[in-house]
Parts: sequence; structure tokens; C-alpha cells
Amino acid sequence: MTQKRTTIVLFSGDYDKAMAAYIIANGAAAYDHEVTIFHTFWGLNALRKNENIETDKGFLEKMFAKMMPRGAENMGLSKMHFAGVGPKLIKKVMKKHQALPLSELVDMAHDQDVKLVACTMTMDLLGLQEKELREEIDYAGVAAYLADAEDGNVNLFI
Amino acid sequence: MTQKRTTIVLFSGDYDKAMAAYIIANGAAAYDHEVTIFHTFWGLNALRKNENIETDKGFLEKMFAKMMPRGAENMGLSKMHFAGVGPKLIKKVMKKHQALPLSELVDMAHDQDVKLVACTMTMDLLGLQEKELREEIDYAGVAAYLADAEDGNVNLFI
Amino acid sequence: MTQKRTTIVLFSGDYDKAMAAYIIANGAAAYDHEVTIFHTFWGLNALRKNENIETDKGFLEKMFAKMMPRGAENMGLSKMHFAGVGPKLIKKVMKKHQALPLSELVDMAHDQDVKLVACTMTMDLLGLQEKELREEIDYAGVAAYLADAEDGNVNLFI
Repeated sequence: MTQKRTTIVLFSGDYDKAMAAYIIANGAAAYDHEVTIFHTFWGLNALRKNENIETDKGFLEKMFAKMMPRGAENMGLSKMHFAGVGPKLIKKVMKKHQALPLSELVDMAHDQDVKLVACTMTMDLLGLQEKELREEIDYAGVAAYLADAEDGNVNLFI
Repeated sequence: MTQKRTTIVLFSGDYDKAMAAYIIANGAAAYDHEVTIFHTFWGLNALRKNENIETDKGFLEKMFAKMMPRGAENMGLSKMHFAGVGPKLIKKVMKKHQALPLSELVDMAHDQDVKLVACTMTMDLLGLQEKELREEIDYAGVAAYLADAEDGNVNLFI
Repeated sequence: MTQKRTTIVLFSGDYDKAMAAYIIANGAAAYDHEVTIFHTFWGLNALRKNENIETDKGFLEKMFAKMMPRGAENMGLSKMHFAGVGPKLIKKVMKKHQALPLSELVDMAHDQDVKLVACTMTMDLLGLQEKELREEIDYAGVAAYLADAEDGNVNLFI
């Protein structure tokens, strides 16, 4: 039996979409797939550290960094965001139903050896530096993503 | 010749995205693919009944249910929604060009034996109950989705 | 060795999402994949010519055509659009980092023999005519897309 493989491009910076990505990734890992999540554009925010990291950046990069959410729990919803009420509401419901918040889904994925990759090209573009992202992740470009995806059974763009 | 298979995760609650999902699904079914549409998060609204269903829910679940569209024809557009003008406009154009409205695309998919699945985890989260969704659909979780997808030829997240 | 194949449904009319689509497509073409980008709904705007094309259309179709961006460089961002400031900002950053603008990514894809397809059904719906789109592209429907995708290694919906 050959190794099953799932790859996800996480482009979106929405809390709910990132949740869907990580739920599928954790499910696939539990069923013994090799799993890669390739974080690009706004999806990189799911890997950002919560705390403010001292960096040396140009003005444009500083502006982007300021406008983007710092870490999984600060991301907004794709629907019914309602100036921040939506995310609070959904987190309340999730807690009530004992669903894991996104930050813990990311931890779980890491513990299950899901390969968490940050797209270096869009890091450059958005001015994100390695020290701003969580530890123990990989850094790669589109070539590495394609190498994983071309043998993938399930390849999704989220 | 082995059976071809298409799976779609319908995450989006946008009318136009759901249309694209169902057009691809109906096309694939016409070409003898086994087809699964796994409705999760806002995509569940495409399966919601039009009429108000009497339910016994907590406050948060009631709020979500109230804010979400009831059924395919009440969903908004991903672009150019313009406070509801966009959906009316596109439906007018669709009628003129004799394109099927979403609700009929869902019926057609059902008639073509496309497997319509509601994600039980997100039903819980959004407080949706089985009696609020259309008849003759399946209920399952991410494991069932992955089992279909890992043999899929075409797997999409919409 | 069999021919590797990548297909992308480009549904989105967002500049950043279209960039991601074209970066993946160009990457895959560079690694000798046969690549198809099937442009449907708002994704068709990436193929639109910049200049105003004289056409004979009904009222509804004229309205749609007017509201939609003319060509790749006039598309908005999926996040942080900020009434048009976002796109200007990201193009500034892209220039600084010598990243190619979308219109040049489309040219590159064309030069690398990526098959650029316009979905005829949604062209009808949105009232777009062939003379409004760039030269040397293909016109097809969902059946042709599925024929490419069912042998695809990497199939994405963006």
C-alpha cells in the first residue's frame, strides 16, 4: 500500500476557513496521510506569534504587518464578521460544544507531524520575518508545494 | 475501467460559488463520476428548507439560525452583492439565458444521485438540526469525506 | 513516465487570488505539467482587455460589464482592499520586491503554453463577448474542464 498524501494551500486569512483547513488536515493525519499545509498570502497569519516582535522593516512592510492579525485567534470570519462580534460569538459556541479553537488545532497538527510550511515569496511581499512566525515550521516556495501536491490524493486550495 | 470520482467541499454560503459547485457536480455526474458534495459551515445553507421550522434551541444557536439565509435562493453573492441588488440582477440574467437557479441545480444533483452530505460537526456548531435541512441527504463527518476524497480524481474546496 | 497535469478553476475576481492561481500555474508549467486555467464567473475579468470595446448588448449585460473590472490590473484585493488603497500598496511592495504584476503573470502563462480557457456559460451570463477578452485563448464549458481535471494530479478551485 502506498502512502496517502493530502496537501492544502491555505491562502485565506479567515478564522472559519483556517479552521476548516486544519480540521481536514488533522483528520487526514489521523488516517495516516502525509499532510502538508502550505501557508501563503493571508494564510500566513495563522502562523504568526501573538506577541509584538521587534523587527527592522521598511515603511510599507510595517504597515502591512500592523494591519494583519497577529496569530490564529485574532483572525476574522469570512461571513457575519459584524465588526468582530461574529468571531466572539462563534468562539462562544465552539467552547460550548467543546470544539477546539484554531490555535489548538494548529498545535495538534504540529503534534501529528503535519508539515506546516510558510511561503517565502509571500513572506517577502507582506514583509513577514521568520522570527514573527511560530517555531518549528518549514520555509519553502511553490516548487516544494508542487512536489508534494503532484503525488497527493487530496489537494485543496482554501 | 475504474469508477471516476469527484468530491466537493462546499464551505461557502455564496450563491454564485454554490452555483459553480453544483454545475461542476452535475457535469461530473452526467459523465458517470460518483459525486459527493460535503456541505460544511455556510455551505449548509444551500440545504436549508425555505420555511421556518419550529425548533428547540439555545440562544446562541437561535441567533446564528436567524442570521443565516434559509435555503439556496436566499443566499447572497460573493461579489457585487450591493445590498441584495446583485442576486436579483443575476437571477434575472439567469432566467433570460435559461440557466437553472441554484435550488433546481440542487434538485438535479439529487436526481442524478449526487451524494449530498451535511457536516454534522458544523451543524452542531451553527445549531442546525436535521429537520431544518432538505430530506434524503446524508449526515457525516470529516472521516467520511476523506474516505471519498482519497480515491477522488477531482477534489475541490469551494 | 506519464505527463503530469494541473488544472485550476479560477472563479475569483480578486487580484491576490488570481496572482496565487497564476503563480501556481506558471510553477507547474515550469515543472513540465500540462496546465489548464478554466476562468469562470469573476475570474473571467483576468482575461478582459483594458480598453473599452464597442459591443452590442442588452441593458443587464451592459450593467454587469460596467461594474466589473477591465483586465487583470484593475481587480481588487480579497482582504484589506480599503477602497482601492490595498491594491496600490501591494503593487508598490511587489515592484520593490521585483515580483511580476498579474498582467505579466498572465502573459508568462500564455508564453509557457498554459491553456487559458474562458467558460462560455458564464460569459453568456455576465454578457461578456469574445472580442472583450484577450486573443489566443480557448472557449469551452464544464465538460471540457472535467475532461482535463479527471486526469489531473493537482486540481484546484480558486
